[in-house]
This record gives sequence, C-alpha cells and structure tokens, in this order.
Amino acid sequence: MQSAAQRAFHSSSIILNKMNPFKIGMIGGGTVGGGVYELIMDRLKSSTDTTRPMIISKICVRDLHKPRDFHIDPSHTQLVSDINEVLDDDSIDLIVEVMGGTGLAKTVVLKALENKQHVVTANKALIAEHLSEIQSSLQQNSSVKFGMEAAVCGGIPVIHVLQSVYTGDVIHEIMGICNGTTNYMLGKMEEGADYDEVLKEAQNLGYAEADPTADVEGHDVRAKIAILAKLAFGTSVTPVEDIPCQGISSVSSVDFEYAKLLNCTIKLVGTASRLSQYGEHDGPLTVYVTPKLVPMTHLLASARGSGNAVAVTSANLGTNSYTGPGAGRFPTANSVVSDICRINANTCTSSPFSSQISGSSSSIDIDNDYTSRFYVRISFRDSIGIIRIIGELCEKNGISIHSVLQNPIVDRMAADFVVTTESCKFSQVRSLTSDIELQEFSRGKPLCMPILMED
Amino acid sequence: MQSAAQRAFHSSSIILNKMNPFKIGMIGGGTVGGGVYELIMDRLKSSTDTTRPMIISKICVRDLHKPRDFHIDPSHTQLVSDINEVLDDDSIDLIVEVMGGTGLAKTVVLKALENKQHVVTANKALIAEHLSEIQSSLQQNSSVKFGMEAAVCGGIPVIHVLQSVYTGDVIHEIMGICNGTTNYMLGKMEEGADYDEVLKEAQNLGYAEADPTADVEGHDVRAKIAILAKLAFGTSVTPVEDIPCQGISSVSSVDFEYAKLLNCTIKLVGTASRLSQYGEHDGPLTVYVTPKLVPMTHLLASARGSGNAVAVTSANLGTNSYTGPGAGRFPTANSVVSDICRINANTCTSSPFSSQISGSSSSIDIDNDYTSRFYVRISFRDSIGIIRIIGELCEKNGISIHSVLQNPIVDRMAADFVVTTESCKFSQVRSLTSDIELQEFSRGKPLCMPILMED
Repeated sequence: MQSAAQRAFHSSSIILNKMNPFKIGMIGGGTVGGGVYELIMDRLKSSTDTTRPMIISKICVRDLHKPRDFHIDPSHTQLVSDINEVLDDDSIDLIVEVMGGTGLAKTVVLKALENKQHVVTANKALIAEHLSEIQSSLQQNSSVKFGMEAAVCGGIPVIHVLQSVYTGDVIHEIMGICNGTTNYMLGKMEEGADYDEVLKEAQNLGYAEADPTADVEGHDVRAKIAILAKLAFGTSVTPVEDIPCQGISSVSSVDFEYAKLLNCTIKLVGTASRLSQYGEHDGPLTVYVTPKLVPMTHLLASARGSGNAVAVTSANLGTNSYTGPGAGRFPTANSVVSDICRINANTCTSSPFSSQISGSSSSIDIDNDYTSRFYVRISFRDSIGIIRIIGELCEKNGISIHSVLQNPIVDRMAADFVVTTESCKFSQVRSLTSDIELQEFSRGKPLCMPILMED
Repeated sequence: MQSAAQRAFHSSSIILNKMNPFKIGMIGGGTVGGGVYELIMDRLKSSTDTTRPMIISKICVRDLHKPRDFHIDPSHTQLVSDINEVLDDDSIDLIVEVMGGTGLAKTVVLKALENKQHVVTANKALIAEHLSEIQSSLQQNSSVKFGMEAAVCGGIPVIHVLQSVYTGDVIHEIMGICNGTTNYMLGKMEEGADYDEVLKEAQNLGYAEADPTADVEGHDVRAKIAILAKLAFGTSVTPVEDIPCQGISSVSSVDFEYAKLLNCTIKLVGTASRLSQYGEHDGPLTVYVTPKLVPMTHLLASARGSGNAVAVTSANLGTNSYTGPGAGRFPTANSVVSDICRINANTCTSSPFSSQISGSSSSIDIDNDYTSRFYVRISFRDSIGIIRIIGELCEKNGISIHSVLQNPIVDRMAADFVVTTESCKFSQVRSLTSDIELQEFSRGKPLCMPILMED
C-alpha cells in the first residue's frame, strides 16, 4: 500500500514535470562527454509522465574554442570554461564529472554534493582514492544521489548489479577482468605476438597510453577491484597502493605455451575474496591483482579482445558472470546515462557503496596472503642438479610440487621450465622465488602466477 | 535538487519505518517459497533508516498439514489455506505468487493488483500468456509495482538489467539459453551420452519432469523469449504458440560429432532479433526457438551444466552477456527477494515491461522467416547419386552449399551426412528438407539447425 506521503509525492512530481526540466551540468567535453551529450540530447528527448525531460544545460571545458567531435546545440546548452558557472548554478540538478584526474575532480565532486547536486562520475581513480570522503559527504547530504557505473568495466552494469541484486545474499568472491588494454595485449600474445610488439600495437591503436604503466602494471585494475571490494564486502581497502599488484610486463609468449599445456589461458585478474576461517567465508578479506592461469573453459576465459568480465560468487547464486565492453565512447556514456536516468526517475539506490540494503560498512580484517595453486616459470642456464635444487627449495618452503613442465630446449644458456605447485600460501611461493633467484643457474626472478581452479 | 514534496516524503517514510513493517503475503509454500521465506525472515531481519522492516505475515498453501522443508515462525507468520485470507488482508503490502500455473495464479495476480497490493511472481507461463492483461491492470493501478525477475533465467538478473541499463540504448538482438534441463542434457550428449539415456538421468535427478515436453520441445524457452522480446523491443508476441519452436528431441549424439568438426557445440537458444530493412535494425522483429550450432569460443558456449546465459546486442554496448544459475531454490528465491527489496525501497521501475524509460509499446512487425547459415543432417540408406540429388534440390530452393561433411559410414543402410549452407531464409531450408524427405534414400525428415556466426 502506498502511504499518503508517497501519493502526495507522486502527484506533485507529475506537476513538476511539465514546468521543470531535469538540468544537467557536465564537467569535461572529451570522448565520454561527447557520447553522453549525444545520448541525452538525441535519444532521450522525449519525457514521460513520471520523469522530467532531461537537458544538458551547461558543459564546462578547458578551451572554449577547441573543436569538438560532437555538435552542441546552443539553444539548450551553454559552453563555459569556469567550473563555478556550473557548480554555483542552482538550477542544475545533477553534475556529470567526466574530466578525469583526482585533483580538481575531487573538489568538483565534493562541492557538488555539498550544494545538493546529484553527481555521476566515470572517474575510478577518484573514487578508489577518496571513497571515504565521498561516502561521508553523502551521509551528510542524504538527499543527493551518487552514480559511478562507468567507473568500473565501462559498459558492464556491474556496479548497479552489485547494488541491487545481492541485497539478501552474501558475496564470497568477486573476480574481474577490468582492463581492456591488457586483455587485448594478452589475447595477441596468446596468438604468438611478443610483449613489446603488442604494446606498440596497442599504443598505435590508441588502446594504451604513451606511458602504459597504469595499464600494464595493474594499477588501473587495482583501483577498480578496490571499488568492487567495497561494494561486495563493505570494506574500504585503503590506501589502494597497499593492494598487492602484479602486472603483465613479465608475462611472455612462452608462458602461453606452458599455459596451453595446462589447458589454460592467461588473464590479468583483480580478485577480492572472503576467506573461510571458522565457517563459510567468515574470515578475512583478501584483495590482489595478478595475471592468473585461467582454464579455457572458465567464464573469465571468454572475455576476448578488449572485453571485460566480472564473476561474482555468492551464497544464494553460486557464480554469476557479467561480460561486455570495458571501455569506449558509447559503452561508457551508456553507463553514465543509465545512472542519470535512474536518478531522474528516483529509482537510484541510497547506499551506493554497499551491496547490502542496510548500507553497513562492517569492518573485516584484510589478509592478502592468499592460498592457491601456483605456476612458477624459472629461467635458467642449463647445468647439472637443477631439479634437485628446486626440489630442496620447495621442501624448505613447505611447498608440494604438482608438476614440472619443460618445452624442448632451444638455447641451453637461456631456457625456461615451469613448476606448478599444490595449494600453498602466496608468501611461501614468494619466498621460494627469492630462494631460486639466488641460485647460480638462475637468470632472474622466476615469474609466479596463481592457477585458477575450475568451479 | 530535491523538491519539497520529495523531502516531505523522505522524512515521513522514516517515521513510518518505526511503526509499520512491510508485510508480505506469499501464495505457495514449495521449493522457491521456502527459499524466499528463509531469506526474508533470516537474512533481512534488520531494517534501515530508509526502508521498512519486512515480514512474511501470511503463507497460503493447499494443505496446512503437509510437512514443509523450512521452519515457519508462528509468532510472525500465519499459515492459511484460503487465498482470500491473503488477498483481502489490507495490511499486506505485497503478494509473492510462487504457486505456478496460469489459472488460479492469474486470478490471484490480477486481484492483488486491483487491491493495490504490489506483486512479485516467478511464473513465466502466466506472464507470457497474460502479459497484456497484467500490463493493462498495471496501467489502471499505477501506484502498484510488479516484479518478475525470477520468471526468466532463475538467478540471472536479466529482467532488471533490461529494465534499467538500456534506457538510452537501442537493442538489436537478444539470445538466451534459458532452460537448465535441456542445457544439462545437451552437455551430457556432447560428452557422448544418448538422448534417451540422458533424459532418464535428468528425470532421476529431478531436473526434468515426468512429462518432459515443456522442456525438451522448447515451450519453456518460448515463454521466456516472449517475455525478453517484450522487454527488449516493446512488442508482445502473442499468442506465444505462434513463435516457431523446435526442441532438442531430434538432436542426437552424432550431431555433436559433426558440430565438433565445425568447432561448435549445440545449445537450445531463444532468439529475438530486429532485422535490418532500410537502415540499421529498423526492420521487423523475428522471434524463434531452436537448437543452434554455437562456436566453442562464443559466450553462449560457456553456459555449462544447468547454467543459463543471455547475450544482448545493442547500439551503445555491442554485446553484453549475463550468465548464472537458471533454476534452483536459492537462485530463484534471490531474484524474488531482490524484487521485493526494490519495491520496499521504492527503487523499482514503474514500467516493468520496457527497457525504454518512456515505456512505449511501439508496434513492430513480426517476421519469423529469419536468415542464417544452416546445418542440415540427412539420414539415408546408401545408394548412387545422393550428392547429385541434394545438389539439385539445393539449387531448386536457391540455396548455396557451404560444405558437405561425412563421418565414416558404419552401417550403409542407416548413415548420416551433413550439408552446411550459405546464408539463406529459414523457409528455403524448410522447403529443402521437405524435398529431401520425399527421396527414396531418405530415412525421415532431415534435422535442420541454424549456425550462429562468431561476432
């Protein structure tokens, strides 16, 4: 049954519609901003009985005279270069932040929330770094809504799904392929390309930045898994830099040859997992980013090219997966626009950082020393007794060997072989690789990756 | 900016919380009902500042004395056997219909909506058959909400995603593996099991009914794709029986051998696709159910066991996919509970049957004579001139042959071979199979399945 207040609200909102468009101010007029503008102004022109018609009334850009790749309708939209012209405009209901960065963007978002303007942002770095400030600002301004669908996995509605599907459920684990650039590169490497060659190709295609560190060293995935972990488990993992993070720059095409022997591929995966302690998944939370060996038949293996995929395992559902485009103008703009529409229709969650309806931010211990089977590739100069020494070092570190793989040796002075372990702790295998590195036959630190087990 | 009415609503709802629980009446106390009861009464006990605490105050069952596999708390919940004790109870805010069937269930749902009670149902047959009546009742009772997440693909939030992610987008195609029983059976057949053997196994496991027609002949998928088509394209395909529907009972393990040669597997797929006519996907809608050859690397191939998967292709996003459990107590109950929580939190969509915010039900022509490459398996007694005759019949029907596949013949009097075609219309290949069936060498109607092309 509707309450009287609900009915009053309902009828008054219908009256509002006719007089009062839902006004949006956009900060940033780049690729995603252009997509948002086109979708809002072209596709969503028509309003309904229950939602207000939407217009983007102001766009703030750095350079008013720079040519744009989208047409701005001057009868509805004013282009400005002073942020305060948007933030101080009381007629604006919602701010879209698509400028990027964590400096000015942070000021913009916090000031907008204070002004009781709703905020939609695509800025994962901002959210991951300043989540607690944004959250406390939202608590103080409980009438404003905050949308961040576009910040993680571009066009996949994973944030919204986490906010609205797991209310009566308990999430055990979330694993994500959240970086399109590295997924594209790993796909090409699987086909035989070299790391350096494929990085150059990705840069030429505009997938990778001139400085590719954030992508290839996993920092981008780290920010995203921090956001997903907050949503899934209610716990902030800060500072983000504390999350153990291994990128793909040490992965080489020879690893794909060995992975194939194990019927696996290699994917850069962000993982947030609740360990079992006394009962089922009641232990500490472990969060980390690393390339993983993923069985060919696993759902995560089906993310191809620059596509993304997220797998969520929970008590009620087992494993669900969500796949789609991880970036790009219209996928990202679509996520921004979905957030805007939900806020305009007043169907947006009031606890954006929690999968639980209670919005509780319970405190869970963090323990990143996770357990897995591991793949360890050892680069060596051929000599006598290597296997014996590896066996001794595994024993010293309490590690059981599952298999030893060796492709035919082409160059005896620069060869590789692989040891796969039984389940052990990450700290054990890290200690093993340090021990191996000190050996005379070693040509550098062994590459170590966890092996994902089939469900 | 929030309006005064919104603010008034907000503060009054907080006062309501303390006095007034959100009361649920459940019709049906079986597998799904028990799961819903446990989730609501155990996991969601705690309320929040902005939502009312939820209780299931009445459960209506046929037999009050039948033992239940869940514990009913008599201090909160009354077990009744008269449906009117639930429907006529003014204190009940929401009716959960988990009784099944399309007779009494229809009366229950329509009466509840008339009484201004919200409705959540898991009943796909009811929705598919009586969609327009439910829709017009909702239009007359615009304050009530209708949830149906559990009706399609059990634990996959595909309904909610269609309602809330594609608002500013245009959907081109939706393809779903929506029946866990047949997906389980096809998986076993891929491993070499026979159809009859695996059907018996599925029946013993409780996956398949004693009368398996609805599953194996595709009728269950047909009801689900009708619902998905309505959501994606705004068009009702009625009567549901008009949707061309081919099940899996003619698929045999030999088809998996040929599929493997084509690097494909076989999946029972419901498809709703907007054809291109003058521009991009502006033509008629085609809706059909059939087993398809699906490339091993396609997202739909990753639905294993009794799992379900839905792939949605749209203008903004390209292809997204959503996978998870298609059935089962807690997956289905989780979807019911998510709907209930959204209705209680007032974040539920007001146009449940549309992916577009405008809720428009535009009228699109239906044309089910779809175009595809096809797989045609011909069962024959060996004789001279068969390939010449097949060639002539293809030519007569305007069909180009792509390849001819023939496994080694074991029994010359009962052998099979396969023709794959270039793109042609379904009507052409149907005419071809009728022509082939009339030939002397034929041992029955050839089995024909479309071949899904890689994206």
